[in-house]
Amino acid sequence: MAAELAQIEQAEIAEIIDGKGIADSIHAEVKNEAEIFNRTYGRFPGLAFILVGANPASQIYVRNKGKACAATGIYSVTDTLPEDITEATLLARIDELNADDTIDGILVQLPLPKHINEEKVIERISPAKDVDGFHPISLGRLMIGADTMFPCTPSGILELLKRSGVKTEGKHVVVVGRSNIVGKPVANMLLQKKKGANAVVTICHTGAPDVAVFTRQADILIAAMGSPESIRGEHLKQGVVVIDVGMNRIPDATTKSGTRLTGDVHFASAREIASKITPVPGGVGPMTIAMLLKNTVKAAMLRKNE
Amino acid sequence: MAAELAQIEQAEIAEIIDGKGIADSIHAEVKNEAEIFNRTYGRFPGLAFILVGANPASQIYVRNKGKACAATGIYSVTDTLPEDITEATLLARIDELNADDTIDGILVQLPLPKHINEEKVIERISPAKDVDGFHPISLGRLMIGADTMFPCTPSGILELLKRSGVKTEGKHVVVVGRSNIVGKPVANMLLQKKKGANAVVTICHTGAPDVAVFTRQADILIAAMGSPESIRGEHLKQGVVVIDVGMNRIPDATTKSGTRLTGDVHFASAREIASKITPVPGGVGPMTIAMLLKNTVKAAMLRKNE
Repeated sequence: MAAELAQIEQAEIAEIIDGKGIADSIHAEVKNEAEIFNRTYGRFPGLAFILVGANPASQIYVRNKGKACAATGIYSVTDTLPEDITEATLLARIDELNADDTIDGILVQLPLPKHINEEKVIERISPAKDVDGFHPISLGRLMIGADTMFPCTPSGILELLKRSGVKTEGKHVVVVGRSNIVGKPVANMLLQKKKGANAVVTICHTGAPDVAVFTRQADILIAAMGSPESIRGEHLKQGVVVIDVGMNRIPDATTKSGTRLTGDVHFASAREIASKITPVPGGVGPMTIAMLLKNTVKAAMLRKNE
Repeated sequence: MAAELAQIEQAEIAEIIDGKGIADSIHAEVKNEAEIFNRTYGRFPGLAFILVGANPASQIYVRNKGKACAATGIYSVTDTLPEDITEATLLARIDELNADDTIDGILVQLPLPKHINEEKVIERISPAKDVDGFHPISLGRLMIGADTMFPCTPSGILELLKRSGVKTEGKHVVVVGRSNIVGKPVANMLLQKKKGANAVVTICHTGAPDVAVFTRQADILIAAMGSPESIRGEHLKQGVVVIDVGMNRIPDATTKSGTRLTGDVHFASAREIASKITPVPGGVGPMTIAMLLKNTVKAAMLRKNE
């Protein structure tokens, strides 16, 4: 009983995992590494963005990534290409960037216009420059536990856990959501026989008759299904670590804009149960760009050492 | 109570999943498809085996695969290369086979001698001819739910389930073991949003403090950890479907050889609990070669239609 009370008391002060702060430390590390790279090789690591069309969200994403490069000493270029560009022209542009020795990473901002085959475009990027980690060869290497370019949000999640002192070894991680950019790769990374992984992993999704059966078992819950505030405190086990990957804009009459940003987890109720929890915004979000910068430096170093 | 009794009664007659019989049907399908391919293109689908050194087990595996090819109308060649072959020579031989239009599939029998980098050799095989499904690009495509060359044992397991009338949709599949050739790919295949998959998947392993916590939840259990008879009836839920991938030779004084082949599941006790179960031998084993033949025909067809 005393132990139970102590546990509840502890739960009441669920620690917030400061993704923004951790991302800032990574930016500082990248800045230092980029500087060393420049001193050694006479140029800064280079990242090329390809932005097709005028999708406003994509424009903002690329602009923010570009700013992060500028702030950390990564040389970046943005190719803005017209909406009606042919697939062949886009592929030819990727070939040029693959061959460009000043470019270490290539990021094609998704989604692409419907007339272009995304899979084909991603597979055209040289795996050595695949800083998004979306090339199937990167994902296949990830699956077998080899070193590779790891996709940014999943590796950001592992980094958040590590830098918050959360041990994953032998823990039961429950991943809700099976997207190709988060759920599937993060599940595969966490089950590897490696330090900072070695977890039992359950991946559940809309196909499950009752997701709560699984979320209630989680020692570490990763919510990445894109459904606002749908995991609540009552779906969780006391002391769970909650990583909320959701980014949903929902109506909120109390704000000036009439909307607010929220995760896939109902923060207030989950915080009463969890031992640690990421906020939205300021949790997983900032880690994605931080890991993109890390990948760019890694790609630059590997290209020099191959 | 009545329902409970009925369930137990049903469980007492746990059906044996006849892997040998199902594999035989697939051989018959392959024979027919190979015949049609020959009528259409004037040659049979072709499979090249590369066998390095004189590992007796490897020799038997390659011989058995070659016999299966001969029986189903697949043209096969076996390159037997010396143990001390250089990596460069082996890679050059793969390049030749990649370029050989009569060869649709290339299978390098593993393990390779220690002085050769297996990862490099596998990555040298043209993904279009990767009938083993071990190339990282095949595994990466598998992970994102794209069509690809699926590795043979995992796809054999899905085929066994399908042809035994076992529905996987919404079920909890527990995979024990995280090898690159079985555990990881079969888990990734079963969690996809596809017919014959769409399961909640847990992948557990030696890193788990108590594997039985997970095996007892399984609607479908896939045992692939390589540990003889270690999952027993008491670790299972009534009515579970058991797929036993294990192939262990253990001492047995009652047999002429003094040994017998057994799975990772204790068959007699598991059969009292399960609704369906694969035997060892005669369960998953025969499916691996069957799916290799299927992959070879698929590779041949895809190469003609690309």
